[in-house]
Amino acid sequence: MTRTFIHGGTVVSATGSQPLDVLVDGETVVAVLHPGSTALGADLAAAADRVLDATGKYVIPGGVDGHTHMQMPFGGTEASDTFATGTRAAAWGGTTTIVDFVVQKPGERVQDTLGSWHQKAAGQCAVDYGFHQIIGEVDDESLKGMSELVAEGVTSFKLFMAYPGVFYSTDGQILRAMQSAAGLGALLMMHAENGIAIDVLVEQALARGDTAPYFHGTTRPWQMEEEATHRAIMLAQLTGAPLYVVHVSAGQALAQIATARDAGQNVFGETCPQYLYLSLEEHLAAPGFEGAKWVCSTPLRSRAEGHQEELWRYLRTGDVATVSTDHCPFCMKDQKDMGIGDFSKIPNGIGGVEHRMDLMFQGVQSGQISLERWVEVCCTTPARMFGMYPRKGVISPGADADIVIYDPRGHTSIGLGKTHHMNMDYSAYEGFEIDGHVDTVLSRGRVIVDDGAYLGSIGHGRFVKRQLSQNLI
Amino acid sequence: MTRTFIHGGTVVSATGSQPLDVLVDGETVVAVLHPGSTALGADLAAAADRVLDATGKYVIPGGVDGHTHMQMPFGGTEASDTFATGTRAAAWGGTTTIVDFVVQKPGERVQDTLGSWHQKAAGQCAVDYGFHQIIGEVDDESLKGMSELVAEGVTSFKLFMAYPGVFYSTDGQILRAMQSAAGLGALLMMHAENGIAIDVLVEQALARGDTAPYFHGTTRPWQMEEEATHRAIMLAQLTGAPLYVVHVSAGQALAQIATARDAGQNVFGETCPQYLYLSLEEHLAAPGFEGAKWVCSTPLRSRAEGHQEELWRYLRTGDVATVSTDHCPFCMKDQKDMGIGDFSKIPNGIGGVEHRMDLMFQGVQSGQISLERWVEVCCTTPARMFGMYPRKGVISPGADADIVIYDPRGHTSIGLGKTHHMNMDYSAYEGFEIDGHVDTVLSRGRVIVDDGAYLGSIGHGRFVKRQLSQNLI
Amino acid sequence: MTRTFIHGGTVVSATGSQPLDVLVDGETVVAVLHPGSTALGADLAAAADRVLDATGKYVIPGGVDGHTHMQMPFGGTEASDTFATGTRAAAWGGTTTIVDFVVQKPGERVQDTLGSWHQKAAGQCAVDYGFHQIIGEVDDESLKGMSELVAEGVTSFKLFMAYPGVFYSTDGQILRAMQSAAGLGALLMMHAENGIAIDVLVEQALARGDTAPYFHGTTRPWQMEEEATHRAIMLAQLTGAPLYVVHVSAGQALAQIATARDAGQNVFGETCPQYLYLSLEEHLAAPGFEGAKWVCSTPLRSRAEGHQEELWRYLRTGDVATVSTDHCPFCMKDQKDMGIGDFSKIPNGIGGVEHRMDLMFQGVQSGQISLERWVEVCCTTPARMFGMYPRKGVISPGADADIVIYDPRGHTSIGLGKTHHMNMDYSAYEGFEIDGHVDTVLSRGRVIVDDGAYLGSIGHGRFVKRQLSQNLI
Amino acid sequence: MTRTFIHGGTVVSATGSQPLDVLVDGETVVAVLHPGSTALGADLAAAADRVLDATGKYVIPGGVDGHTHMQMPFGGTEASDTFATGTRAAAWGGTTTIVDFVVQKPGERVQDTLGSWHQKAAGQCAVDYGFHQIIGEVDDESLKGMSELVAEGVTSFKLFMAYPGVFYSTDGQILRAMQSAAGLGALLMMHAENGIAIDVLVEQALARGDTAPYFHGTTRPWQMEEEATHRAIMLAQLTGAPLYVVHVSAGQALAQIATARDAGQNVFGETCPQYLYLSLEEHLAAPGFEGAKWVCSTPLRSRAEGHQEELWRYLRTGDVATVSTDHCPFCMKDQKDMGIGDFSKIPNGIGGVEHRMDLMFQGVQSGQISLERWVEVCCTTPARMFGMYPRKGVISPGADADIVIYDPRGHTSIGLGKTHHMNMDYSAYEGFEIDGHVDTVLSRGRVIVDDGAYLGSIGHGRFVKRQLSQNLI
Repeated sequence: MTRTFIHGGTVVSATGSQPLDVLVDGETVVAVLHPGSTALGADLAAAADRVLDATGKYVIPGGVDGHTHMQMPFGGTEASDTFATGTRAAAWGGTTTIVDFVVQKPGERVQDTLGSWHQKAAGQCAVDYGFHQIIGEVDDESLKGMSELVAEGVTSFKLFMAYPGVFYSTDGQILRAMQSAAGLGALLMMHAENGIAIDVLVEQALARGDTAPYFHGTTRPWQMEEEATHRAIMLAQLTGAPLYVVHVSAGQALAQIATARDAGQNVFGETCPQYLYLSLEEHLAAPGFEGAKWVCSTPLRSRAEGHQEELWRYLRTGDVATVSTDHCPFCMKDQKDMGIGDFSKIPNGIGGVEHRMDLMFQGVQSGQISLERWVEVCCTTPARMFGMYPRKGVISPGADADIVIYDPRGHTSIGLGKTHHMNMDYSAYEGFEIDGHVDTVLSRGRVIVDDGAYLGSIGHGRFVKRQLSQNLI
Repeated sequence: MTRTFIHGGTVVSATGSQPLDVLVDGETVVAVLHPGSTALGADLAAAADRVLDATGKYVIPGGVDGHTHMQMPFGGTEASDTFATGTRAAAWGGTTTIVDFVVQKPGERVQDTLGSWHQKAAGQCAVDYGFHQIIGEVDDESLKGMSELVAEGVTSFKLFMAYPGVFYSTDGQILRAMQSAAGLGALLMMHAENGIAIDVLVEQALARGDTAPYFHGTTRPWQMEEEATHRAIMLAQLTGAPLYVVHVSAGQALAQIATARDAGQNVFGETCPQYLYLSLEEHLAAPGFEGAKWVCSTPLRSRAEGHQEELWRYLRTGDVATVSTDHCPFCMKDQKDMGIGDFSKIPNGIGGVEHRMDLMFQGVQSGQISLERWVEVCCTTPARMFGMYPRKGVISPGADADIVIYDPRGHTSIGLGKTHHMNMDYSAYEGFEIDGHVDTVLSRGRVIVDDGAYLGSIGHGRFVKRQLSQNLI
Repeated sequence: MTRTFIHGGTVVSATGSQPLDVLVDGETVVAVLHPGSTALGADLAAAADRVLDATGKYVIPGGVDGHTHMQMPFGGTEASDTFATGTRAAAWGGTTTIVDFVVQKPGERVQDTLGSWHQKAAGQCAVDYGFHQIIGEVDDESLKGMSELVAEGVTSFKLFMAYPGVFYSTDGQILRAMQSAAGLGALLMMHAENGIAIDVLVEQALARGDTAPYFHGTTRPWQMEEEATHRAIMLAQLTGAPLYVVHVSAGQALAQIATARDAGQNVFGETCPQYLYLSLEEHLAAPGFEGAKWVCSTPLRSRAEGHQEELWRYLRTGDVATVSTDHCPFCMKDQKDMGIGDFSKIPNGIGGVEHRMDLMFQGVQSGQISLERWVEVCCTTPARMFGMYPRKGVISPGADADIVIYDPRGHTSIGLGKTHHMNMDYSAYEGFEIDGHVDTVLSRGRVIVDDGAYLGSIGHGRFVKRQLSQNLI
Repeated sequence: MTRTFIHGGTVVSATGSQPLDVLVDGETVVAVLHPGSTALGADLAAAADRVLDATGKYVIPGGVDGHTHMQMPFGGTEASDTFATGTRAAAWGGTTTIVDFVVQKPGERVQDTLGSWHQKAAGQCAVDYGFHQIIGEVDDESLKGMSELVAEGVTSFKLFMAYPGVFYSTDGQILRAMQSAAGLGALLMMHAENGIAIDVLVEQALARGDTAPYFHGTTRPWQMEEEATHRAIMLAQLTGAPLYVVHVSAGQALAQIATARDAGQNVFGETCPQYLYLSLEEHLAAPGFEGAKWVCSTPLRSRAEGHQEELWRYLRTGDVATVSTDHCPFCMKDQKDMGIGDFSKIPNGIGGVEHRMDLMFQGVQSGQISLERWVEVCCTTPARMFGMYPRKGVISPGADADIVIYDPRGHTSIGLGKTHHMNMDYSAYEGFEIDGHVDTVLSRGRVIVDDGAYLGSIGHGRFVKRQLSQNLI
C-alpha cells in the first residue's frame, strides 16, 4: 500500500486548528502527529512513498456535499452532469463525497429505483457517493421499502411539499412517512414550499403575461417557504421524526427552524451558496431570458428583504447546520431555453458542486464565518448528519483519507474558461473571485487533484453505506 | 522523557467517537493512531515506558472546570478547599484544568491581586490552573489593568450584578468594563442577579422572621435572574462585548440567552450540576438548618417550575455552552453555621469540583445528553471558551496530555466515606450513584490517578497562560 | 309604537358601566338618559307604555352569537335545532342575534344556497339572524358569487382546512378565496385543522381498535390545529385578507394568532365556552359512549396541557376577540349514536346557544374576565366583527333595542329539566351552576323573555344585512 | 342651569360612530338621543339655551392628556407653561382634562408636595386636571404617603429609572414602591431608561467634545430604553403591580411590552406625537443648536431604524394604550440655550399639549389608525387608565360635558403666528398641516372654545379626584 505523508500544514477541524502532520496508509489515515515530535522513532517523511508539503496551508477533511442531483430526470430533461462529470467537478473543488438522490415515482418500488441509481453511478464516480431516497409516492409499499433501504445504507428519505403532480406528498403521506422515519430513527428530508398555493400563483402570473424568469421568484414568495417549513416542523413534532429542511433560502423559514431547535426538537436547516450570495434583484431579474440561469427552487430571495444576511447570521449561530449545493445543472441551450415564454417550463436547478468549498471559504475571508465553522458546515456536520462519521468529515486515524490541502493565499477565478469543470454552458457564479485555492485533493489516499492537474479516474469513487444520523440532539 | 501508550479505548471528541490509540511523549500527546495500522513500522506499545489498556473504555480529554473558587475569602470566612486540596479533588474526578477567580476589591490594583493569587496557587496545585479576574471596582485604574492582564494570560473578567457592597458593579461600571472588554476582545463574565432588589427581599424576609435556609431561595426569585441576564445582554449588545453568564439556574434566563444567540450575539450560558440535579423543594427546604448545605447563588430552583428540565434541554440545544462547578466549598461546622437564624449570613457556595465529570456522564446514561455533548460541555468548549485550545480540551497531537480513561461500566458512589476528597464536612451530592467511573487520569503525561489510587503531587499543576476566547461566533 | 322605559339599572358597555336609563321607542333605542336628570322636562317613565325596573341589575346589549349551525346537514343527519327552536333557545339565554352558516357544496351556486337558507330561516326565527357563507368549492363561479353576497349583506366567508371530501379546501383554493376576500374587504373565516393529516390518524386509530369517543380527541392533536392556524395566517399575510379563526381550542394556536396580531396583521381568534370549561380528560374520556356528547371539532383539549387556562388568559389579553357557541346540536339517540363503534361517525357538534351569556358571566364571577370584557366578547365585538354595529352590540340611541336585563344576584342551573330549551336530549353543561340570571330580554323593542316566561314568537326575528367588518385594525 | 343641545353630528366612541344628538344640562351630559326620534315629546333644540350645530362634524369626548408638566422645576429652570397658560393651550386643542405630575423630592413629605401642587393649580386652570405623584425618594415615609394619596384621588405614582441624582430610584426602591402599588391596586408609572449607564455615555460624549444637541439622542440608545422597560416589567411581574410605561419611543421597548401583555400581565405603553412624527435625523440633528428644540427624554429615535413605523403599528394593535404629550415646554431663549456647548444642560422637554388631538387625527387621515382608535387612545383609554371613567373619556349621560366638535374638513396650520397658544418661543411642530380642525370645545358644559375664539376663563378647571385604574385586564 502507498504511504503518503502530509506535513507542515495546519489541520482544521470543527473545533479548532493546529499544526499537525498526517500519515496516510493506503486508503486510510493511520496517524496524526505532532510535527515537532521524535517519539515515533522514524523519519516518517522518508519512509513515505509520497510527501506532500502543506506549509502555510490548511489541511482539511474532504468536502461532503449532502445534496446533489446527477443526471436527474426533471422537467422533461435530465440534469446535465452525469455521475462521471459531476463527481469529477466535485473533486476539482475539494469535495470528496456527495450524497445524491434516488428518485422513486408512483408505481415503482423504492428498492428498484435504488438499484437503478446504483447502476447509473457504479463505476462512474471520481469520488465517493451515497444515496438519499426520494419517496415520490408514500404508500404501504414504499413505507416498507424504507426499512430495507436503511439496512442497505440509505438512511435518509426526502419528501416534497412542492411540485404537485410530480414529487408532491400530501400532509397525510408526510405524516405516515415521518412515523416510519421516527420508528427507524431515519432522517426525513423536506423540500418545504407550499406547492399547491404556489401553483395557483404561477398560473395567475402566466395568465397575466408575466412569463419571464423573474416571475419564478415572485410566485414562490417567502411566506410559502416559511409556511411549509412550519408545517413540516409540526408534523415532525407530532411524530418524533428528525427533520432536515433542504435548501432553505428565506430568513423567516430559518426563524421557524431556530424556534423549534430552541425547544429541543431535532430540526436541521441546510442552505446553499446560491442563497448566500445571489439574489432575486441581481440575478433572477437579469434582462431577457438571462435570469433562467438562476431558476431553482426554493428561489433566490430579495436582497432588499435581507434574506442573505439572515442566512449568514443563522450560519454563524448554528441554526443552519450544513451547506450543500443542491447541484442540479441544466444548460441554457436546449434545457433552460425550454422555458422561454413560460418560466414554469424552465428546468429548476443550479450547478455548483465544484465551487462550494471555495465560496464558503470566501465567507471566512470576508469575516462572515470562522475557519472552524467552514469545516464544520461543509465537511464534519454533513458527515455526521448523514451517518458517515468518522469515516468522512474528519481527519482522524481510521478515517478515509479524504483530504484537501487548501491555500488561503491562493486565488480562484470562477467562470467559463476559468475554473469550470461541470457540464454546463454557463456558470452561476461567473466572475466570482475567491481568495483561496484548492491545491491538492486526496480521495481515500489517492491524490486526484494536485497543482491544477486532475489525476483521478472514473470509477475510483465507491458507494458509502451510511448509518443513521449521528447529529441528533 | 516518558512515553505512554494508551490503546484499546474509544476516543471521544466533541464531534464523535472512534477506536484510537494515543501516544504520549513527556507532557504532550504526540500521535493519535489507527489501532489496526502497521504503518508506523514499530511496536509502539513495546517501545512505550508505560502502556495503559483502555479496552472497553472511553478515552477523553481531561475535564476543564471553568469556574472554581479555591480558598476564596467570602462572607467573613474562606472557601474550605485550598488550591492544594481542591485541585487534588479535581484530579480524583477527572478534571485536569481549573480556572479560578482572582478577586480585586476597591482600593486594590488588579495586577497586585493577580500577583497575590499567583502566590496562593504556585507550587500548590495538583492539576493545571488558569485565572479569571474579578473586577470588584471598575474605575480608570482597574480598566487599565485589564489590558495588562490579557497580556499575562488572564483574558476574562467577571463582574457582579449581585452582592451590593461586596462585588457589585453599577450598570455604568458594567458598561465601562464591557467597552474595555470589547476593545480587548476579552470575555466579560457576569453573575447576573439583581442584587439591589434581592437585598430588599432578603431584608423583608428576615424582618418577617423567615430566617431558614429555604428563604435564601425564595428571596432570589427567577425573575431577578432573568432580569439581570437580559440587562447584561443589552449592555453587551450596546458595547459589542462577548458575554458569558455564569451559573445560570433559571429556565427563563436561558431563554433570554437563547434569544440573543439566535440574533447572532456572542452570549454564552454556563450552568452547574447542582442546578441540573438539585432543587429548592428537595434540598434548600430540608428540615432545620440542613438546607444550608445547598445555599449558593444563583440559588437552586423549584422543580415544580421546571427549571431543571429546561436546563437539560438547553444543554442539548447548545444554549448552555459549558458546565462548570462554581466550586466554592464551605463546611457546615464553623462556616455554614454562621447563618443559623439568618440565612443571609450563610456563606454562599457548594463544593463539587470532584464530581462534575461523573454527574454529567450520568446525564449520558440517562439519555439527557449525548456522549459527544458530555465531552463538549465539560472539556472542549470550556477550553475554547477560555482560550486554552488546543492545548486543553482535546486529544490531539501537540495538546497537553491531559487524558481521562473513563469506564462506562464502572460505578461511583458519591458521599462522605465513599467518593469524597474535597475539604468539606458534607457532600452536596450525598447518596448519588453514578453508572461510570474515572479509572485513570493523566495530567500533562503524568498518571495522577489510577485504579483508585492518587499518584499526583502538590505543585505538579502549572499556570496556564490563556489566549482570547476561541469560541466566539 | 310602543315605548319602553328601562330604569334603575347599570348599563354595561365594552368600555365601562354606569347607571343609565334607556328609552325604547318601537324597535329602537331612542335615548339614553342620566337617571338623576330632570332636563327632559317629562316623566319618561309615566309616558312609557311599559316600564322595566332594572334596579340592582345589569342592562346590557343583547348577545350576538357569531357562530351557529341551525338544522345544518352534517354527517348524514341534520343539526337537531331548527331556526325556530334554536333561536328560541338563544332568546332564553339572552342572545338576540345569531349569525348562521349557509352551506355551499360542489355543484351548487353560492347564491342559490343563500336563497335556500333564507327560505329555511324566514318566518321561523325568534331573534334576528345574519348569514355567513361556507364556500364548499372554491372555483371561478363561487368566487364571483362572493361579491354578489357582500352586496346582499353576507360579508364573511368560511373555508375548512378540515373535513377532506366534505368542506375541505386546498391551500390553492384558500389562496384564491383569500385574494377575493382581500379585494372585497370581506372577512375570511377558517376552520383551522389539518384535516388531511388528521384523517390518517383517525384511520390508524380505528385500525388499532381505538373506536371510543375519546379517540376523537387524540386523533386531532393540538399540533394539527396550531399548524393549520399558522398556515391560514401566512396565506392571509400573503394575500392581505382579514382572517377570523373559528373555535380555537389549542393554546398554541392562539399563540400563533397573538404573534400575527403583534405584527399588525388583521387576524382574530374566536373561542367557545366548551373550550374554556370542558376537557379531554373530564368529558371526552367519559365511560362507554358517554363522551360522544362532547364530540366536536376542534376537539376539547387536555386540561393537563393547560389549554383552558391559556384560553382564559388570551380572552383577557384580547387575542381571543369573540366568544361564540358553534352551536351544532345533535341528540344522543339516533344521531350521536351513529358513531357507536366508530367515533369518526359521530356527528360533530355541541349545542350551547342558550348558555353562552351565562357561562361567560360566570367567568366574571370567578374573576377570569372583567364585566366590560364579558359584554365586549359576547356582544360588542361580534357585532363589530361582522358589520352590524351600531345596530347591534351596543345600547345607544339609533341601535336596535336588543337589550338584556341581567341579574348578578340571580341563579341559573343548567341541565335537562332545569334550564334547557334547545332541541337536544342531553346538555353538554349538565349540572353547571351560574351565579347570575337572564331576567328580561328585548328583541327590537319587544320583550321576548321576562321573569321566566317566554313571550316571543316565531317569525319575529329578521334577517340582518351586514356591512363589512368594522373591527379591522 | 344652562342647557345645550348638540345636534347633527356623528358621535365617535372607542367602539364606533353614529349620528347622535347630545343634551347637556349644566355641567353634565344628561341624554344621548336618536336624531330621528320624536319619542321624547318635546323639541329639545327649542328648549335648549344654546344649540350647537355639528352637522358634518365629529362629536367626541374632550381629550384627556395623561402626561403634562406645567411649571415643573427641572434642570435649574421651570417649564414655561403655567397651569394657566398650559391648560388654556390644552383647551384650544380640544383637550379638556390633563393629569399633571406632582414632584416629591428627598426630604419632602409626598402629602406636602401634593398640597403645594394643589396651590399652584387651584384657581388657575382652564380645564379640569388631576395629579399623578412622582416619588422622588422611596422610603418608609413616602410609601405610607401613597395610601393617603389614593384616598385623595391621586392613584398613580411615577418613578424614574433615569436621572440619577434627581428623580432616580434604585431597583430596590422600585421594588418597594411596586409592592405598595400592588397592595393598593394603584398604577405604577415608569420612566424607563437606564440612567446609570446613560450618564456614563453622556460623560464620554462630552469628554470627546460631542456637545451638540444631536448627542443627546446618541447617548440614550434604544438598548437602554428596551433594557429598562424589561427590567420594570420583571419587577412588576414579581410584585404584581400594574405598570404603565411612559413616553415609549423605541420599537424594541414596545416589543417587550407586547410580550408581557401577551402573557397576561398588566403592562401598558404610552407614546407621544413627537415619537410618532419626529426623528433623530430630521430634528435632533438640525444644524447648530437648533436641535435643542427637540431635546426630550426618552429621545427622538432614528427613522432609519424604523421606530416611528413600529410605534404606529403598536398603536394599531393596542400595545400602545394611550397617547399623551409629556408636555414640558421650555423656551429656546434663556432656557434651552443653557445647554449651548453641553447638551446635557439643555432642559429636557417638548411642548405639545395643544396639538395632540390634531396630530393624532392626522393619523386617521393618513390611514395609520381608525377614527375609533383616535378617540380610544386620546380620550377613552386615558380616562379609564387613570380612573376617571365614565366622568371623562366618553360621551354618555352622567358624564361631565367635556365635548369637542371636530371638523374633518377643516384645516389647522401649526406654528408660531399660526396655531400656537403655549408659552414657548418656538413650536416643535412648526409647519405641520392638519386636515381637520377643533371647532368647538365644551368643558363641563361650558363652551370654552368656539369658532376660533377662546371663551374660557382662568379657574374654570377643577381638580379631578381619581379612582383606581379601570383599564386592568
